[in-house]
Amino acid sequence: MVNETQQTCSASSSSKSDGGSSSGSESSKDSSRCSTPVLDTDRHERLRDKMRRRQDSGDKWFSLEFFPPRTANAAVNLISRFDRMGAGGPLFIDVTWHPAGDPGSDKETSSMIIANTAVNYCGLETILHMTCCNQTKDDITGHLQKAKRLGLKNIMALRGDPVGEEWEEEVDGFNYAVDLVKHIRNEFDEYFDICVAGYPKGHPEAESYEADLRHLKEKVFAGADFVITQLFFSSACVTGMSEKGLGKTKIPCILIQGYHSLRQLVKLSKLEVPQEIKDVIEPIKDNDAAIRNYGVELAVSMCRELLDSGMVHGLHFYTLNREVATTEVLKRLGIWNEDPRRPLPWAVSAHPKRRVEDVRPIFWASRPKSYIYRTQEWDDFPNGRWGNSSSPAFGELKDYYLFYLKSKSPREELLKMWGEELTGEESVFEVFTCYITGEPNKNGHKVTCMPWNDDPLATETNLLKEQLEKVNRRGILTINSQPNINGKPSTDPIVGWGPSGGYVFQKAYLEFFTSSEIVTALLKVLKKYDLRVNYHIVNVKGQNITNAPDLQPNAVTWGIFPGREIIQPTVVDPVSFLSWKDEAFALWIEQWAKLYEEESPSRMIIQYIHDNYYLVNLVDNDFPLENCLWQVVDDTFELLN
Amino acid sequence: MVNETQQTCSASSSSKSDGGSSSGSESSKDSSRCSTPVLDTDRHERLRDKMRRRQDSGDKWFSLEFFPPRTANAAVNLISRFDRMGAGGPLFIDVTWHPAGDPGSDKETSSMIIANTAVNYCGLETILHMTCCNQTKDDITGHLQKAKRLGLKNIMALRGDPVGEEWEEEVDGFNYAVDLVKHIRNEFDEYFDICVAGYPKGHPEAESYEADLRHLKEKVFAGADFVITQLFFSSACVTGMSEKGLGKTKIPCILIQGYHSLRQLVKLSKLEVPQEIKDVIEPIKDNDAAIRNYGVELAVSMCRELLDSGMVHGLHFYTLNREVATTEVLKRLGIWNEDPRRPLPWAVSAHPKRRVEDVRPIFWASRPKSYIYRTQEWDDFPNGRWGNSSSPAFGELKDYYLFYLKSKSPREELLKMWGEELTGEESVFEVFTCYITGEPNKNGHKVTCMPWNDDPLATETNLLKEQLEKVNRRGILTINSQPNINGKPSTDPIVGWGPSGGYVFQKAYLEFFTSSEIVTALLKVLKKYDLRVNYHIVNVKGQNITNAPDLQPNAVTWGIFPGREIIQPTVVDPVSFLSWKDEAFALWIEQWAKLYEEESPSRMIIQYIHDNYYLVNLVDNDFPLENCLWQVVDDTFELLN
Repeated sequence: MVNETQQTCSASSSSKSDGGSSSGSESSKDSSRCSTPVLDTDRHERLRDKMRRRQDSGDKWFSLEFFPPRTANAAVNLISRFDRMGAGGPLFIDVTWHPAGDPGSDKETSSMIIANTAVNYCGLETILHMTCCNQTKDDITGHLQKAKRLGLKNIMALRGDPVGEEWEEEVDGFNYAVDLVKHIRNEFDEYFDICVAGYPKGHPEAESYEADLRHLKEKVFAGADFVITQLFFSSACVTGMSEKGLGKTKIPCILIQGYHSLRQLVKLSKLEVPQEIKDVIEPIKDNDAAIRNYGVELAVSMCRELLDSGMVHGLHFYTLNREVATTEVLKRLGIWNEDPRRPLPWAVSAHPKRRVEDVRPIFWASRPKSYIYRTQEWDDFPNGRWGNSSSPAFGELKDYYLFYLKSKSPREELLKMWGEELTGEESVFEVFTCYITGEPNKNGHKVTCMPWNDDPLATETNLLKEQLEKVNRRGILTINSQPNINGKPSTDPIVGWGPSGGYVFQKAYLEFFTSSEIVTALLKVLKKYDLRVNYHIVNVKGQNITNAPDLQPNAVTWGIFPGREIIQPTVVDPVSFLSWKDEAFALWIEQWAKLYEEESPSRMIIQYIHDNYYLVNLVDNDFPLENCLWQVVDDTFELLN
Repeated sequence: MVNETQQTCSASSSSKSDGGSSSGSESSKDSSRCSTPVLDTDRHERLRDKMRRRQDSGDKWFSLEFFPPRTANAAVNLISRFDRMGAGGPLFIDVTWHPAGDPGSDKETSSMIIANTAVNYCGLETILHMTCCNQTKDDITGHLQKAKRLGLKNIMALRGDPVGEEWEEEVDGFNYAVDLVKHIRNEFDEYFDICVAGYPKGHPEAESYEADLRHLKEKVFAGADFVITQLFFSSACVTGMSEKGLGKTKIPCILIQGYHSLRQLVKLSKLEVPQEIKDVIEPIKDNDAAIRNYGVELAVSMCRELLDSGMVHGLHFYTLNREVATTEVLKRLGIWNEDPRRPLPWAVSAHPKRRVEDVRPIFWASRPKSYIYRTQEWDDFPNGRWGNSSSPAFGELKDYYLFYLKSKSPREELLKMWGEELTGEESVFEVFTCYITGEPNKNGHKVTCMPWNDDPLATETNLLKEQLEKVNRRGILTINSQPNINGKPSTDPIVGWGPSGGYVFQKAYLEFFTSSEIVTALLKVLKKYDLRVNYHIVNVKGQNITNAPDLQPNAVTWGIFPGREIIQPTVVDPVSFLSWKDEAFALWIEQWAKLYEEESPSRMIIQYIHDNYYLVNLVDNDFPLENCLWQVVDDTFELLN
């Protein structure tokens, strides 16, 4: 009946295993246990361990392959796609490497930067491909060092296609993927997880299938952690390969795309398309929809066969940077995560340094990528208690057009939404009101984004819609808010987060720009609310009025879970509010005023608001009672009348 | 309307000001703000700052003077008195210093150790008296270093009475209190707050009142922070002195005791008792009650005069180690704190190192002094997140008779409560049941303490009385429990703690010893409760059964306050449970079995329980629902039937 249980702590053990990474957290080094509640095991595990865990639990998974885009605009769109497809719960994504496209550079379209964005800004576990053929050892080491610095943790080690027809092996050079695998293990020990390619039908250049299997074995013995297969057209190939057994996880690769992409890829990979597929495809090759439907059907049935075989635990999809067909297949297979559980109320970053991050200021709720950018140099992340951080200074955000922060809407569209010509402060009130209501503006355009929020209104904010509309109409220009919540289940589809079996709580929060006239009245009203409402009121010059005690953060979102410590992932932090204030005011100018000609009346209206309005935040501390912030605002308007 | 507010953080600024103290918390050094929510400003302030703050706010206060007891038993009683009188909210207590009594030694009756106990174990702000006359510089420095090491922060610098009639000033020696004040400031900079004595009527040895005032000024200029007056019999003296104004807080001193104590003290201090007082006292000098009543009346009226004068903000009471009269005066003056607000659910320690301590395991709830003792060597205290501590190892507790842990009841009384002769396990069940119900045992004795709890049942536990009685009767021998609480006001008289305006929460908790037969059934029942109930079940050999994830603590008490982060002061911590287990099992033997003869049947019954029972703790994670732990226990009994 009784046995001595020895328990290990996944957080601290994994922080040891990635030796090279500087987690920066003093405490985790000394402590005998996790220094942060492990709410989400995924955040603390290496990819190979996640894969093993999913394999052991019989939990099927998928992964998605993307290539680096050609233009900055395409990069912006790809990042949005990462966010959307990330919601379906891929175990990882991977980004391909094209030696001709300067893949290791700092360009926003390079493989390195796209992978960096996926990891750090979209929170996706990411494998960066890397080829070694025709490259110097120093170049390769440089790429790997950069990848590590950026927080990338997984490399797909490939040979790459030799340049020129007459390729010859270089002595002591990187001639095969196995050389790259060995190099990574030599230089970076166990820091990276290494993935290699397997060829279900044998590599096109290999003498024989057996020779190819031998090469694969060499790669595995050199230290590869798992194998992704090349594209194939029949599930039999993969299961056949699996039976040969290499003791490593093998992930078959799926493609569902149009005829031309297929032809291109087949050419590149020197694969042969089976005759029965050719027979179906040829007659419909100019009918994109038909090809797509056929591709989806074929993919679904092939994937089912693979998953049913029991040999395969995950499927890898060549998305060719497209979204619809892959998502459809995944949904039909039932492995798309329809109801992604949020581990925390905000999207976590996958950088190893941010593993312990479990608290953020509420201000950046709609601009998480900006928050990540401005805190990227922190050595240490607040863990549980905001005040514990030794890195409290926020980085500058001068370039409001960093590509992952760039609006998805072009200038013309923004002008349609926010007004070709503003006639006064009231026309600005109107824009805010339309954004809240979702109704078209007087020119018939819906306002789907704002400088402070590039996405339509959050579901949660919808709960407050009616009140928000009323106050925006009168010049309380809201940019962030949350309702109070007094212990809803952590599985609540709208406000829930964290593991199941818990309860989540919120204090009501309201943040807005408003005129000094309204602020004067508001301050009189706030006297009546004493301890109940905490406020911070600041203008662009930094004049700051607050009743907050000391410099202490106010926890506004927290959760109570079975067998855990309290998690308080969102705070109103007085110190970071002053950094946020700079960003929030600058967005008026950078994203809105600059749409108009200099000296134009429209621009001057925005400039006037920027110069004279206040940024206000209010917290109702009495979360079990009805939110009093609407009463505060009503009282303020009444006082003004 | 708008002004730029500069806020400071009392926690971090005060942690700087006591330079010498090693707080051990890495984070507070680097952080730009408080690393711990400042729930209770008092904990972070120096005595002189507390005094100033109370003076500024017009909030009257009192302080209590004690002398070191003569015997170890008297020390145990004095410690209990500290706990009871501490509840009334003295601003500080002070402990006198008698050079003849080895005041700096490690004896349990020394001034040093009594002051240490008051600070560390009773959480009282304490001033240690120290005299300098006829002592070497090295001795004095040694005493001061020891005081600092023990966490004492305040010294009352006195000359002390010269030994022998023919006292002469020593060249370069410590001839006057001012020499000691200078020495403390030279050697310890600003570490200590220094108090000096003032003589409302002039020092008995001073040439004149003016000369005496000059001496007082010297002491103040040398660095004294405040002045406590000598005993006096008329409030006019003090207000007169105050008018002379030295710019330092002056605290008048009050005595209300019997005739003999008075005569003794008057003799020592060479004071003159006013004729009108003598006239009243003489006729009633042999009637203790009358003297006491007169003393109380006189003290109350004098204190009222002083407080009403507006010159005096606090009153200092010579308790002569007695409790009743002083408490009565304080209550009649309305400055006894009738409803002490608890800053945290457990009594905090006043050691500067423990200033950041805001979380403890629930196991020691009834043995806080043992917890403090066993963690006294920690460099660092868990602050907010238990896992952040770098000092997780608990010190041994071998001596169960450390004087501040000693039972207030003598052996004979314990035997009456716990049974002169035990006839089986059932007679042990009976003892537990009587402790819960408060009913006398079969020999007519009430059971007011248990080895795990030296006090009668806590008010909070009373809420669970009925259920506790039922289960103890059947062999679930409870030693700790708390009900679930879903957001009661922080001002709730029974379960409230922390500043007002907040809400407190608890998960239901139950801890008990029980037989392996019951454990077997319990484990079957617990399967049904899955995530809802976390359990740890361990026997004396350390065989441990748990469903707790990893080594993470489970927060079981937490509070949400206006403008603050979440506070979670009590956890069920799996690691410390194993240290508690050793202590909890040892108490069977040390405090109970050893009451009986070796080899006696009674002793063997206790030994059997010690060797074979399990220590179980259960947490119901679903705090908003009705506590399910009673259902778990009922199901277990049902399964056994």
